[in-house]
Amino acid sequence: MARYFKKRTENRGLPPGSLVFIGTKKTEQPTVEYIAYNTEELAEREFIKIEDVPRNDPERLQWYNITGLDVVGFMQDTQQRLSIAPLAMEDVMNTGQRAKFEEFDDFAFITLKMLQFNEESMRVVSEQVSFIIKESMLITFQEEAGDTFDAVRHRLRNAKGNVRKMGPDYLAYALLDTIVDNYIYLIENLGEKIDDLELRVLDKPNEEVLNMINAYKRELHFVLKVVKPVKELMLNLIRSDTPFIGKKKTLPFYKDLQGLVVHAIESVEAYRIVLSDYIQLYHSTLSTKMNDIMKVLTIFSAIFIPLGFLAGVYGTNFEHLPELQYRYSYFVFWGVVIAAAMGMLFYFKRKGWL
Amino acid sequence: MARYFKKRTENRGLPPGSLVFIGTKKTEQPTVEYIAYNTEELAEREFIKIEDVPRNDPERLQWYNITGLDVVGFMQDTQQRLSIAPLAMEDVMNTGQRAKFEEFDDFAFITLKMLQFNEESMRVVSEQVSFIIKESMLITFQEEAGDTFDAVRHRLRNAKGNVRKMGPDYLAYALLDTIVDNYIYLIENLGEKIDDLELRVLDKPNEEVLNMINAYKRELHFVLKVVKPVKELMLNLIRSDTPFIGKKKTLPFYKDLQGLVVHAIESVEAYRIVLSDYIQLYHSTLSTKMNDIMKVLTIFSAIFIPLGFLAGVYGTNFEHLPELQYRYSYFVFWGVVIAAAMGMLFYFKRKGWL
Amino acid sequence: MARYFKKRTENRGLPPGSLVFIGTKKTEQPTVEYIAYNTEELAEREFIKIEDVPRNDPERLQWYNITGLDVVGFMQDTQQRLSIAPLAMEDVMNTGQRAKFEEFDDFAFITLKMLQFNEESMRVVSEQVSFIIKESMLITFQEEAGDTFDAVRHRLRNAKGNVRKMGPDYLAYALLDTIVDNYIYLIENLGEKIDDLELRVLDKPNEEVLNMINAYKRELHFVLKVVKPVKELMLNLIRSDTPFIGKKKTLPFYKDLQGLVVHAIESVEAYRIVLSDYIQLYHSTLSTKMNDIMKVLTIFSAIFIPLGFLAGVYGTNFEHLPELQYRYSYFVFWGVVIAAAMGMLFYFKRKGWL
Amino acid sequence: MARYFKKRTENRGLPPGSLVFIGTKKTEQPTVEYIAYNTEELAEREFIKIEDVPRNDPERLQWYNITGLDVVGFMQDTQQRLSIAPLAMEDVMNTGQRAKFEEFDDFAFITLKMLQFNEESMRVVSEQVSFIIKESMLITFQEEAGDTFDAVRHRLRNAKGNVRKMGPDYLAYALLDTIVDNYIYLIENLGEKIDDLELRVLDKPNEEVLNMINAYKRELHFVLKVVKPVKELMLNLIRSDTPFIGKKKTLPFYKDLQGLVVHAIESVEAYRIVLSDYIQLYHSTLSTKMNDIMKVLTIFSAIFIPLGFLAGVYGTNFEHLPELQYRYSYFVFWGVVIAAAMGMLFYFKRKGWL
Amino acid sequence: MARYFKKRTENRGLPPGSLVFIGTKKTEQPTVEYIAYNTEELAEREFIKIEDVPRNDPERLQWYNITGLDVVGFMQDTQQRLSIAPLAMEDVMNTGQRAKFEEFDDFAFITLKMLQFNEESMRVVSEQVSFIIKESMLITFQEEAGDTFDAVRHRLRNAKGNVRKMGPDYLAYALLDTIVDNYIYLIENLGEKIDDLELRVLDKPNEEVLNMINAYKRELHFVLKVVKPVKELMLNLIRSDTPFIGKKKTLPFYKDLQGLVVHAIESVEAYRIVLSDYIQLYHSTLSTKMNDIMKVLTIFSAIFIPLGFLAGVYGTNFEHLPELQYRYSYFVFWGVVIAAAMGMLFYFKRKGWL
Repeated sequence: MARYFKKRTENRGLPPGSLVFIGTKKTEQPTVEYIAYNTEELAEREFIKIEDVPRNDPERLQWYNITGLDVVGFMQDTQQRLSIAPLAMEDVMNTGQRAKFEEFDDFAFITLKMLQFNEESMRVVSEQVSFIIKESMLITFQEEAGDTFDAVRHRLRNAKGNVRKMGPDYLAYALLDTIVDNYIYLIENLGEKIDDLELRVLDKPNEEVLNMINAYKRELHFVLKVVKPVKELMLNLIRSDTPFIGKKKTLPFYKDLQGLVVHAIESVEAYRIVLSDYIQLYHSTLSTKMNDIMKVLTIFSAIFIPLGFLAGVYGTNFEHLPELQYRYSYFVFWGVVIAAAMGMLFYFKRKGWL
Repeated sequence: MARYFKKRTENRGLPPGSLVFIGTKKTEQPTVEYIAYNTEELAEREFIKIEDVPRNDPERLQWYNITGLDVVGFMQDTQQRLSIAPLAMEDVMNTGQRAKFEEFDDFAFITLKMLQFNEESMRVVSEQVSFIIKESMLITFQEEAGDTFDAVRHRLRNAKGNVRKMGPDYLAYALLDTIVDNYIYLIENLGEKIDDLELRVLDKPNEEVLNMINAYKRELHFVLKVVKPVKELMLNLIRSDTPFIGKKKTLPFYKDLQGLVVHAIESVEAYRIVLSDYIQLYHSTLSTKMNDIMKVLTIFSAIFIPLGFLAGVYGTNFEHLPELQYRYSYFVFWGVVIAAAMGMLFYFKRKGWL
Repeated sequence: MARYFKKRTENRGLPPGSLVFIGTKKTEQPTVEYIAYNTEELAEREFIKIEDVPRNDPERLQWYNITGLDVVGFMQDTQQRLSIAPLAMEDVMNTGQRAKFEEFDDFAFITLKMLQFNEESMRVVSEQVSFIIKESMLITFQEEAGDTFDAVRHRLRNAKGNVRKMGPDYLAYALLDTIVDNYIYLIENLGEKIDDLELRVLDKPNEEVLNMINAYKRELHFVLKVVKPVKELMLNLIRSDTPFIGKKKTLPFYKDLQGLVVHAIESVEAYRIVLSDYIQLYHSTLSTKMNDIMKVLTIFSAIFIPLGFLAGVYGTNFEHLPELQYRYSYFVFWGVVIAAAMGMLFYFKRKGWL
Repeated sequence: MARYFKKRTENRGLPPGSLVFIGTKKTEQPTVEYIAYNTEELAEREFIKIEDVPRNDPERLQWYNITGLDVVGFMQDTQQRLSIAPLAMEDVMNTGQRAKFEEFDDFAFITLKMLQFNEESMRVVSEQVSFIIKESMLITFQEEAGDTFDAVRHRLRNAKGNVRKMGPDYLAYALLDTIVDNYIYLIENLGEKIDDLELRVLDKPNEEVLNMINAYKRELHFVLKVVKPVKELMLNLIRSDTPFIGKKKTLPFYKDLQGLVVHAIESVEAYRIVLSDYIQLYHSTLSTKMNDIMKVLTIFSAIFIPLGFLAGVYGTNFEHLPELQYRYSYFVFWGVVIAAAMGMLFYFKRKGWL
Repeated sequence: MARYFKKRTENRGLPPGSLVFIGTKKTEQPTVEYIAYNTEELAEREFIKIEDVPRNDPERLQWYNITGLDVVGFMQDTQQRLSIAPLAMEDVMNTGQRAKFEEFDDFAFITLKMLQFNEESMRVVSEQVSFIIKESMLITFQEEAGDTFDAVRHRLRNAKGNVRKMGPDYLAYALLDTIVDNYIYLIENLGEKIDDLELRVLDKPNEEVLNMINAYKRELHFVLKVVKPVKELMLNLIRSDTPFIGKKKTLPFYKDLQGLVVHAIESVEAYRIVLSDYIQLYHSTLSTKMNDIMKVLTIFSAIFIPLGFLAGVYGTNFEHLPELQYRYSYFVFWGVVIAAAMGMLFYFKRKGWL
């Protein structure tokens, strides 16, 4: 749960605007994946030194996908070479950021989190992605290299869909769409697991089930914490007047995306209610079972403890105990025992305990 | 509960605007039911090939009711023949859509869900319906052929009410009214079942009752998930400036419909509170019964366990046990036993346990 | 609880605007009570045929109080004779209506519910009342004849207060005031019963108390469902620009009434919280009692079961059981028993169970 | 809890504007305390007849503090002598009023409640105070004579602070400030009592503690019901354009007061959450104790009931019971008993019950 | 919890604007720490007499950091020497203030609380800090001297970051940033402790764990009570038109800060939900354990109580008890006993209790 904050302690006391990496070190070697394209052609290269990266290409749109936020020197060089405002760069490197959209003088800035569910540890893990959308340039920052953007790369290379024909705002949209699709896929996935839990709650309400409910609750809580600010981000983006996102051509796609985010949030909340209902169900089932157990205990005790006393009475060694001598005493005793047991059973039957 | 999402996985990575069916395959053979009418006459036909469907009839209003969303080729042909924007068509075919109203350049678009309660499986099932309202044309898309719209068809054929005199916006209203009426009928139906449950909760709080409460809760939750966005849809529609819905003549009907949707939502929420109260009642009843059970157990134990011990004492074989020889020991023993039992009973009486 | 909806099933499939009675049949014979008055004089008559009812009286204000919503023919005649828009008439006859205020071309329309508490069945019952306020005419529709409006009739006849001096809008206000006063009286009445319940919850938390809490909760829920839309009605009425309610002279009274409705709603909600607290209290009291019961059981069992075992040991028939022969064994045995019991009691004392 | 409403039943059916006292009769003799002052001088008198009270003093500001709302005749005279609108006077006399601010043609009207905590009955009692602020006159109405306003009287007499230099709006502020200070004092007082409860909940969760939690909850609920409308009152007052409260000179004080009211409400709500946590804590503590009790019961029963059975076996009188004759049987028997007990203890230890 | 209010009782009845210290006395000796600086130079001194403090320095920005709110005389002198409005000074000295931003004629006023977690007492303690931002002067008031502002002092002395180049508004921002950073550090710290609690809840749900959950809940509640008004403060500050905070140059920093405060509040609320889930988990775990305990008890009782009765029967001393004489009775008896026990075990197995 310490996921809710990445330690901001590292930069306590530092003046604002200082570049400090806040998060868990993930990469060994920073890389810049570089794709330059227009409707006719596409060039693709990978760099490990920021000095080698081409700066500006008037003919083509450029996408820089940068990994290695934790290498401060590399990031400083990147900031200068691609002329990014320091405040934005600080946000890129603070991986404990809330998702947000911000307008700068010469670019639009988006930062949000990608989510992945680790089946083994039953934990949702997040990775921060930031977008800098300039006139004819898109710069993306990831904590780790990964395959999330492969589908978009594929579409770029094969010139499928609109992606080659439109600007960096559309490319950013396409990447964001992939991220939001991933949210939904993850929620679906969690949702199915949660659905499967219902039978186990009703059938075998034990601590393992309880732990699982609790774990899913915690993870959904975390997903919500990540996805909710994305809705705000989208609203701010749509309401903004930024010149870096095309009002006519690209904005409708962002609006569509916003609808998807709302849908995702609603579904998470629906599942959270489902889990709360499970907990209630768990308790109810347990109480019902407890009642059954207590009935069994009470029936046995209430029948046999008095009878045990009766047997005890005739087991006493009083010298003058008249019943002991009668010939049929033993059989009368059994008769009384059986009658008493019958009486109790009848009483419990009437109480509805049998 | 996986109902909250239809798998969006199928189109992960595809560019937006690709036509993909998302949902459960329900039809074998796509059909187009075609009704063309004006105040004087009405013609009705059914087609299975989209090429045969008449395109435009300047004299008459046209209603195309199309089933077979899952046949992608057929849908693509439909899109082109009836000139529908691809983004709208994508929404038509994604049956995991939230209800929404959207304005396009040459039509108004509505998508929402019809609901039906399956008595056997105790599940509410939904079917997506989409409306495309053009100048003098209404296109509706259903997942399956059904009898929901029969009442409207009947009114059309018999020229009952306003339906023949007014435009496709009114026809759409009439169909939507049928759908919302169905919501209310379903909620009423569920509501009566829920009402009947109260006595069982009080009388026999067992796991079956618990399961039923839970099932109804889940279904109402689902109904709410479907109906709530319809309210938004209605608000957006009423606030919009779309030229495809008559401000003066038709809008008041839509406003009326919106009131009905609000009423439906409020009722679902009222029943949800009722069910929450049942759960609480279930627990309270169970606790009360548990208390009764424990009282019986405690009374029996507290009386007979000490007496059993007493009998045990006189059952010991100590050689020197003076009481055993006295002539009236046995009767004194019984006297003590009865007095002790009486004392206990009096004590429990005073405690209010009897 | 099926009170939340009156069956709308009857008019499924019918075109909107058809007059259908929705509700429970209550009257045998429709009647029109007719009062015409001005500051100088007042005439009062009762009719059972709508054709006999005077249509328009330029000199006097007219109040038509109509009972018998369930006689469709009579209502149709009424609609025509008093020229009421069909949509309003449909709402008058659908007794499952939410309270609402609506403006029509030639009148203002109000519909809401009167409430009454049936002491015997512990149920709040509602009756729909509708108001049509015209220039110099007030038409009211009730499901049943009743004495609710008697105080106003009395004031009219005796020319007490403003009622004779002002228009039909003021008369409508006076009647609405009576209805809202009745709400408050009913809530007060329920509230006192609820207050009396507290002691019983603390004293004797049994199923009967539980049922009563539940019943009151359900009734308050119903009252809220009825009264809440009245607040909306009032707000809409006050905000509207309808010419049928005097801005200067009458509106302040309506505003006052609105404050009263808010007060009523707040009180219902206060009592609902009180009832929720009772349920919590019920559980807490039950848990406390259960704890007491378990302590008694445990104390008795923990003392006497081990002692019973000890007695059992000396009741065994082993041939070589040395303790049995010693002269003072029996007394030593009792000593041990008493010491053990004392020890246990001391232990339970320290645990705070005694 | 019937405190939420003062009986409005008394004026059912009466025309609005009739003067009726609604509340509990508290005074014997109505009095008018009269203070007239300007920066130079101050005159103070007390009257019991309204005819003797001076009407208008062009030189001085006048404060009339009137007690005796329940003497209708006296109030009617007061209304006429001091020319107060009947609707305001009706509100003054209905002590079941919600706090409100209202503007009249020739005065501003404020009504709210003073609160006092009765330590003995553990009940918060309220007294209604109304303010009529005219050009150079302040009229206050109290249910009972009391010492609440003494501090302000003192400041007036000794010309301390601003009170002698400013108008009746400031005097009203000073009195309101006293009332709000009293709210805060009362909440503090309750809060300290509530804080002291925590240890008792953890230590001895019995019915007495439960009753106290419940009582405090009820009282805080009541306080909230009284104080919340005061916030609204303040907002309305600040937003209003009334000429009777000085925009520049006095309004900042009222704004300050409003902040205080918000603070009071927040604190009540904080304490309500604290009490809810106590209830939860109560249950948790009780459950934990119950678990402990059950462990003791189970340990004793599970050890000694089987051993009792074993002893019983060797207490049987079967003629052929081989073990009885062996010389060391009895010692073997004890060995088995001790081993079994040890085994059980070890088992419970491992289960973590010891 | 009395932390929610500092006693306002001290100034009951006093006219507003009187300087009274409300809070806990913390300092012995009031001090004024004085730093005057511009981009070129910085002078630093400490005073204990307010008369020695320099008043105005046209060349340099001045920061007065004042400790010793509880020495009324000293504060009165300060107020006059630095010409501060009395209403602001009253707020400075009332340490029970809600955080707020207020505009005065010649300065902007901010008051809020610093937080610190005392590990030993498990309590969050607060200290009030107030800011008075004038044209070229910043006055800060602290309850106690402390090291919170050391980082900023350090930056000032070493001319690091913007702090020397910008006005007193930026200096105030830098100090506020330190305070908010401290909030986040504290929440992180509490959050980690809370995370560590989860295992203990699942493993050993005893009263100690319960107390800790409760303690953290209370502390988070307190943190929220302190931090929430800071969000309001920030909003008011950003929306205000005060000339004392630079619109262009400094406001963006305040906006950034506001985002941080929102983040802090969201995290506190996330942890509160976590704690509520723990309580639920605590109960669920306890119920599950209770169920296990009851099963053990029931199994032992249900098997051995009936068998004990059986043994009792053959321990009776009836003269005519035929079974006793048969040679193999004893072995048959054991057979029956074992069979019965087996039967019970099988029954419990099938019930899922084993």
